[in-house]
Amino acid sequence: MYQAMTTLGFAAQSNYKGAPNLAGAPKGTRVLILGAGLAGMVAAYELRKAGYTVKILEYNQRAGGRCWTIRGGDSYTELGGATQKCKFDPGLYINPGPWRIPYHHHAVLGYCKQFGIRLEPFIQVNYNALVHSTKAFGGKPQKYRDIQADFQGHTAELLSKAVNAGALDQQFSAQDREKLLDAMQHWGGLTQEKTYRPSLESSLRRGFKVEPGGGLMPTHEFSTPMDHQELVDSKLWKRIVDGQELEFQSSIFQPAGGMDMIAKAFERETKGLVRYNAKVVRIHQDDKKVQVSFRNSDGTGAEQVETADWCVCTLPLSILSQIPLTASSTMLAAINAVPYEGSVKIGLQFKRRFWEQDEHIYGGISYTDTPIQKIAYPNTDYGKPGKGVLLGAYVWGANAFEFTAMSPAQRIRKAVEYGGHLHKQYAEEFDNGVAVGWHRVPWVHGCYGKWSDEARERHYKNLCQIDNRIVLAGEHASFIPAWMEGAVLSSLDAIERLHTMVVATAKSA
Amino acid sequence: MYQAMTTLGFAAQSNYKGAPNLAGAPKGTRVLILGAGLAGMVAAYELRKAGYTVKILEYNQRAGGRCWTIRGGDSYTELGGATQKCKFDPGLYINPGPWRIPYHHHAVLGYCKQFGIRLEPFIQVNYNALVHSTKAFGGKPQKYRDIQADFQGHTAELLSKAVNAGALDQQFSAQDREKLLDAMQHWGGLTQEKTYRPSLESSLRRGFKVEPGGGLMPTHEFSTPMDHQELVDSKLWKRIVDGQELEFQSSIFQPAGGMDMIAKAFERETKGLVRYNAKVVRIHQDDKKVQVSFRNSDGTGAEQVETADWCVCTLPLSILSQIPLTASSTMLAAINAVPYEGSVKIGLQFKRRFWEQDEHIYGGISYTDTPIQKIAYPNTDYGKPGKGVLLGAYVWGANAFEFTAMSPAQRIRKAVEYGGHLHKQYAEEFDNGVAVGWHRVPWVHGCYGKWSDEARERHYKNLCQIDNRIVLAGEHASFIPAWMEGAVLSSLDAIERLHTMVVATAKSA
Repeated sequence: MYQAMTTLGFAAQSNYKGAPNLAGAPKGTRVLILGAGLAGMVAAYELRKAGYTVKILEYNQRAGGRCWTIRGGDSYTELGGATQKCKFDPGLYINPGPWRIPYHHHAVLGYCKQFGIRLEPFIQVNYNALVHSTKAFGGKPQKYRDIQADFQGHTAELLSKAVNAGALDQQFSAQDREKLLDAMQHWGGLTQEKTYRPSLESSLRRGFKVEPGGGLMPTHEFSTPMDHQELVDSKLWKRIVDGQELEFQSSIFQPAGGMDMIAKAFERETKGLVRYNAKVVRIHQDDKKVQVSFRNSDGTGAEQVETADWCVCTLPLSILSQIPLTASSTMLAAINAVPYEGSVKIGLQFKRRFWEQDEHIYGGISYTDTPIQKIAYPNTDYGKPGKGVLLGAYVWGANAFEFTAMSPAQRIRKAVEYGGHLHKQYAEEFDNGVAVGWHRVPWVHGCYGKWSDEARERHYKNLCQIDNRIVLAGEHASFIPAWMEGAVLSSLDAIERLHTMVVATAKSA
Repeated sequence: MYQAMTTLGFAAQSNYKGAPNLAGAPKGTRVLILGAGLAGMVAAYELRKAGYTVKILEYNQRAGGRCWTIRGGDSYTELGGATQKCKFDPGLYINPGPWRIPYHHHAVLGYCKQFGIRLEPFIQVNYNALVHSTKAFGGKPQKYRDIQADFQGHTAELLSKAVNAGALDQQFSAQDREKLLDAMQHWGGLTQEKTYRPSLESSLRRGFKVEPGGGLMPTHEFSTPMDHQELVDSKLWKRIVDGQELEFQSSIFQPAGGMDMIAKAFERETKGLVRYNAKVVRIHQDDKKVQVSFRNSDGTGAEQVETADWCVCTLPLSILSQIPLTASSTMLAAINAVPYEGSVKIGLQFKRRFWEQDEHIYGGISYTDTPIQKIAYPNTDYGKPGKGVLLGAYVWGANAFEFTAMSPAQRIRKAVEYGGHLHKQYAEEFDNGVAVGWHRVPWVHGCYGKWSDEARERHYKNLCQIDNRIVLAGEHASFIPAWMEGAVLSSLDAIERLHTMVVATAKSA
């Protein structure tokens, strides 16, 4: 019965219920929104639609926040003062922030649909891409499909051996052992003798040494699986799991033309609401109103004040923690409890799409244990002539600190150098690059709010509770950190709760 | 050393070398090509480029053969006389024949690139699609991701148990056993205790019972894996292997707008060479020339004769075996040795894309043990409003015979009935359909040439050898049956060999 119930429940309960219920907004109620990232834009779009009087203050000259795309001609100045002017060809870009939308991120997909944003598949798993360790296979990159096929094949063979050695006799009847052996054979690409070795079965997974052809072309030859122990020791099997993880499972998408197509759509839909170039310097509230002081983003200009009845603050905690704010001690403690993770993305333009032309790698990701960690190929315009931009580094952890400490030019040089381990064409074909180290991005000082379990336990509810007239939203106020879905859901939840309070307050007044 | 050599060889040796070498074609040499499918079009395109005088005879009013797309307004009459007029909305279509291009089908991809055909990813694996057996889980469809995650997780747990029970002590040192256990934990989504059970680890693969949200939305809850024995018994694990097979591995493509974009491009590039509506009725050759007699496709009109120096015959063997042909007894025996497989594809138009709107299935394939076997969702226009066409059946084996025996209307009715097991919206949302049973397609009488190992051994070379002035080409003359790549490689090989012979003959003359 329990089993039946759980299998009936395959439609996981989503926290996205569609448009928020904001009926009955008291006329003339003003809501000030801080930050025109996705959380702020969702709040602005929905609250205005519900009848609220909305204004947004935004630091940048554009909306979107981390939902950001860099194209040729764009200029970007990081903390420390280094300015990069992107020299990509027309139509080429990188998304320094979010770059994919999982199929179960219903809120983001819902807005994409509403706003008519064209989506194209993001290739997460490419069996023809590379998996590379400097410490394994003599430093020679391997094919993803070989690692995948061989790890599964060897595992199936080992389990078959163990079954035949009687290791699972207590758990399984003779009949069930036969069924399990059949499953292992089919699933693992084993021969009838339950071995994983050079054969048609294994070659149909890992590819042939000589591929089958037409007419009287040379006859196909089987390929030889790699040694099991060498494969286990290489740890390259770690890389074949990514695409099986919920957030990276196919189908997964990117907006055609750049992630900021989402930002631009929200910008269009909230036309006239955003005050750009506004750096918030103080947030004050009392029982009647919220007052937010701001200057020009470069610190120049007179301090100005915006007054509203309520406030949705979507500033990253890394920024908010530096701004004087009237709030409860529990909210202030929560704001200070979340460090920001670092990350680096480097876009590299090459004179031609050699990964497609020479190596038949169409989209997807290669993995390496060098500091660049990943190389990701463009998931669009397959087979197109001309220049191409790939993601030459997607760096986390200690490597991210290291890369962020370098100048942009050094980061790019290093990305080209390390990438050369995977693609010998790098040196010859490199054209130009752009590098974003998130700890140096002036308006966020990091990549996303990295909650520890302890901090969640102690502070998360305090961060999300409406504090008098202010509610916080953003990926940092969600259980889906770093993802746009977290920002959007957080915002939808925040404005629904705020609306309930506004209506209640209006009635009691 | 051997290991090093094989791992160095990860660039499998392809049988596609780019454009064929046809230098030095003797001026004025006439080649007659039979059939304007891909093999015929490749031959025509390359031979004309090399300076040959080329003509093609084609049964249909269009080029492409099985590289075929049916759109609204198209009319199709099958053997037996039933005519279907497709009523799909503008822009919607099905590909009754080939519908995907693997990343290693270099020849087809090469022509796509040459002709500027826009490719879009074909979603082979969709973790959110369905896997259904009427005999398992009470007939309730399961999620692909649950089958994938649970089968791998349970396998990892079982192997861990076997290792801990000492079953592999002779094969592995204590240190290597630890490494293997670590690998199993990571790869299988096991807990630290090496168990696969409701946990964060397993939910990050199979999804949550309640998904993580934003703000103060309900807290996420882990999901419960299915019972291992029930999963093994269900045989649904068979379905999670498809995407790991070489020909279905990502990245895999479809031409945007329909597979016949390839046919149309070849048609454009060979303008003026094709004589449509020509049914070949006799092929005669002697030491000097080839003479091919033909009529209108409906059998009307006077018999006409086309004469040439050489002939590339790409007619399917199912057709060629019925036509008087002057050839060696070994080639004639080979032509008669290959039965044609049957298959049925049914396109169904629905009033809305409910699979996306209600079920968040974006592209990809659902599997079922009902006779329709597969349901495939469109890999384009994700999130688009309006009607949608899915592949409502892709049928092989005995079911294909059964379906082909029905009238088109019956086939469609059955597809809607069986599909309703997977999607309850079928009955309400169905609009219209079109059904192609390949054994009733007048110009091929089947789907592809199904070689047995014995027939290959005995007849394949005899089929492919140039017989006096005639050479055969097509997927049936390749080791990649049913795939366009087989047709193209076969043709490239055939014309290179023919060219060599032509040049040698001219020199000796």
